[in-house]
Amino acid sequence: MDQVDLNSDLGESFGPWVMGHDREMFEVITSANIACGLHGGDPLVMHRTLTLARENGVGVGAHPGHQDIWGFGRRLIAIEPEEAEKLLIYQIGAIQAMARAVGVPVTHVKVHGALANQMAANRALAQAAARAVGTVDPTLIFVALSGTEQERAAREAGLRVAREVFADRAYEEDGMLVSRTREGAVLHDAAAAAARIVRMVREQAVTAITGREIPLSFETICVHGDNPAAVAMARQVRSALEAEGVAVRPMAEWVF
Amino acid sequence: MDQVDLNSDLGESFGPWVMGHDREMFEVITSANIACGLHGGDPLVMHRTLTLARENGVGVGAHPGHQDIWGFGRRLIAIEPEEAEKLLIYQIGAIQAMARAVGVPVTHVKVHGALANQMAANRALAQAAARAVGTVDPTLIFVALSGTEQERAAREAGLRVAREVFADRAYEEDGMLVSRTREGAVLHDAAAAAARIVRMVREQAVTAITGREIPLSFETICVHGDNPAAVAMARQVRSALEAEGVAVRPMAEWVF
Amino acid sequence: MDQVDLNSDLGESFGPWVMGHDREMFEVITSANIACGLHGGDPLVMHRTLTLARENGVGVGAHPGHQDIWGFGRRLIAIEPEEAEKLLIYQIGAIQAMARAVGVPVTHVKVHGALANQMAANRALAQAAARAVGTVDPTLIFVALSGTEQERAAREAGLRVAREVFADRAYEEDGMLVSRTREGAVLHDAAAAAARIVRMVREQAVTAITGREIPLSFETICVHGDNPAAVAMARQVRSALEAEGVAVRPMAEWVF
Amino acid sequence: MDQVDLNSDLGESFGPWVMGHDREMFEVITSANIACGLHGGDPLVMHRTLTLARENGVGVGAHPGHQDIWGFGRRLIAIEPEEAEKLLIYQIGAIQAMARAVGVPVTHVKVHGALANQMAANRALAQAAARAVGTVDPTLIFVALSGTEQERAAREAGLRVAREVFADRAYEEDGMLVSRTREGAVLHDAAAAAARIVRMVREQAVTAITGREIPLSFETICVHGDNPAAVAMARQVRSALEAEGVAVRPMAEWVF
Repeated sequence: MDQVDLNSDLGESFGPWVMGHDREMFEVITSANIACGLHGGDPLVMHRTLTLARENGVGVGAHPGHQDIWGFGRRLIAIEPEEAEKLLIYQIGAIQAMARAVGVPVTHVKVHGALANQMAANRALAQAAARAVGTVDPTLIFVALSGTEQERAAREAGLRVAREVFADRAYEEDGMLVSRTREGAVLHDAAAAAARIVRMVREQAVTAITGREIPLSFETICVHGDNPAAVAMARQVRSALEAEGVAVRPMAEWVF
Repeated sequence: MDQVDLNSDLGESFGPWVMGHDREMFEVITSANIACGLHGGDPLVMHRTLTLARENGVGVGAHPGHQDIWGFGRRLIAIEPEEAEKLLIYQIGAIQAMARAVGVPVTHVKVHGALANQMAANRALAQAAARAVGTVDPTLIFVALSGTEQERAAREAGLRVAREVFADRAYEEDGMLVSRTREGAVLHDAAAAAARIVRMVREQAVTAITGREIPLSFETICVHGDNPAAVAMARQVRSALEAEGVAVRPMAEWVF
Repeated sequence: MDQVDLNSDLGESFGPWVMGHDREMFEVITSANIACGLHGGDPLVMHRTLTLARENGVGVGAHPGHQDIWGFGRRLIAIEPEEAEKLLIYQIGAIQAMARAVGVPVTHVKVHGALANQMAANRALAQAAARAVGTVDPTLIFVALSGTEQERAAREAGLRVAREVFADRAYEEDGMLVSRTREGAVLHDAAAAAARIVRMVREQAVTAITGREIPLSFETICVHGDNPAAVAMARQVRSALEAEGVAVRPMAEWVF
Repeated sequence: MDQVDLNSDLGESFGPWVMGHDREMFEVITSANIACGLHGGDPLVMHRTLTLARENGVGVGAHPGHQDIWGFGRRLIAIEPEEAEKLLIYQIGAIQAMARAVGVPVTHVKVHGALANQMAANRALAQAAARAVGTVDPTLIFVALSGTEQERAAREAGLRVAREVFADRAYEEDGMLVSRTREGAVLHDAAAAAARIVRMVREQAVTAITGREIPLSFETICVHGDNPAAVAMARQVRSALEAEGVAVRPMAEWVF
């Protein structure tokens, strides 16, 4: 592969509380997943974040999550598919209107946090997510962890899909992420992560934590901006890709 | 005038808490103002309410309010125009997407509670509201109290406007509502209210609380469904109008 | 046994949203479990409910739940013991202060909804609950489903315990509630429920859904006030108990 | 005067969102005003902050505010005295229980943000605050801006009062704060602020923004920890006071 998208979860500030280094990240990434007000973000933060996306030529995606400000959408909350579907429709609609006000199109959806994990593992919830996206705008790209129920449901629904990998996470042999509770689950060496990502893009494969090489197809790489080290790693990932002649471009320009 | 719209604020239940007699009201009214989740309503309630609107052939409007579940959007909260604008965009977008999922168009916007009062009195807030509506969809009808900053701002922004009167409220000589704290501010006699409304529609005038006849132009009448007596009054208002040959039709069909 | 307590979950209204028939229930029960503002209730509702408890001579308990207004505390939310402990301390303290303002003592704690279920099944969460209660006031009675981790943890912590049964629920042979999803799980016949309860109190036993008689020790019976039928059943339960000479008294007067 | 208290608003983080430099500030101040969960803070943050207070020997106060996470309690929200009273009781009770769990006493109350401003200007709201404090614990010190309705109401209620001044704010001739919208309202020079504070403590007077010397009696100085410059100013204020022989001590040790 000679092109790839770099995405990051942004717009997660809330009222007076600042989270992340959004300004720096907008200079590094090509697609932003923007919180929609229920687990992070609020109308002012959304507007400000969308404006930064427009100014930086970065693609815009909805990043809907659980209604859970206290837990930042990271707590597993039991939810029925019918409710999950409406929860996503609500949030995607809210950010679509805000994006219209700012003058940028919403081109993808990536579910946030615990709800994303629930939708990766549970077929009915994944189908609810696909229905929500297809209902609101069937041209939206569905960002999904490769090989999960999310990917399957989105493909079955006829949606465009962008499979996602993480620049800073180790992989199991079955293509799943190594649990954060295990040693070696998170990569901290920016240079190593950047070098690994270049290989992953070129070969569409990754060396699993067991040492075995496994195939891994993807269109977008998730990078983080929580702290200065994360921002630096994101920068290095991008530089390494470009140095190797990989085009870093918004998924909406080339994922069909 | 030989036609008028009947509107009501519906979809104000929240999670397990039920408010209002929505099913009965949908049989009486022609336009529903539906809460958007920040002062009442939630994604499931919104979906259910929009479905009832579709089934009853009732026009759908957004009913955005303050972010204030505790106070049901009835508490005055200081807000800057810039924030109010985004607050409305967010909520209108959310209900637009939900309405798309249900298969009904959103045709009007009526601001809720304290925020509506603030926008009726404050020019900058009213302009923020008009900007929000114009940004999201300039074909939306703006429902405004006649003679307020809301009406002025909406007209200046080139929006369609539906002026609203209340079936159960007394009027001052200047066309403003008599404060609820005053004796006689609220009408409780359904027959008297119905008779008065027929005259108001025919003559586009009302007898103020002082006894003086004043001109009062409007396109839509607000009725309530908080309790069985209110529902009965709404029914009687509609019956009286139809008995007198006034067509009761959704505002979106004839307000331009 | 010749005495028993009748408890009910009250004060679950929220802002303008009314839930339950609290006034009627206060005439029937001897102990009220009062919502503490995070899943239902708010400071005004709490004050009003505590005042009704004082006027009716009903014992007062905290009824803390998940921070989850949207889901009324009924959704399972993953939570660590450390956080659950603080969540309970917060809510118990809030109602203790409000009760002081009203002039009634808080004498028991019963956890609400999904959090109660999680604490009934999970030892570490149950211990967190017992720690929270013991920390705030070790004289508080811990209301627990008989035979659950909640009861065990409370006893190990040296707390007074009131075991709870339900007037309207069927039981499995192991003393657990029959799942609501099964036929026959909920009793709807008030007379039958009342007659059954009298036997349960007298014999400290119940006929399980399988038909087998099983021992079941308890000090308090939960009744509901969600709708007029539930209120009527609660009244009939109390009348039947008193007709049979069972003293219906606040748990705090006799549970040690 | 040869002694004074240094207070700061801490524990304002919320869920995953961090606010302020609490650890540094706990080494500088003698009294902490801790958010109670409704405008900032949550049970975990409260517990953590109270633990820091205990470890640093810093006095603990409740810092209750509006129920307004979106606005961080800084937005004016219309509120009736009856509701404001219950709002304060709720929050003070919550932090009292949490403080008991941590093993520190709550010794003062300082109202937060917009609610504090409303209570400084409105007699009925100020009396509601004084009633709330007197009801929950009449030995609590009420921290109030000197010369406001808050101070008057607290004194009339027989409460202990600590009058507060700000290290970084200019004063009008009538002892009120210069509005933040005016040039010179906020002091940015740490050395100048520190020198000014020493004189203010010694002489119980301040040079108003007009240049005129006015009397200004107080027991506690508010310092901020929002950013590194604020922390540095707070450190310098304390150093200057101690260098001049002023004892910096928790208000609860000497305000009667």
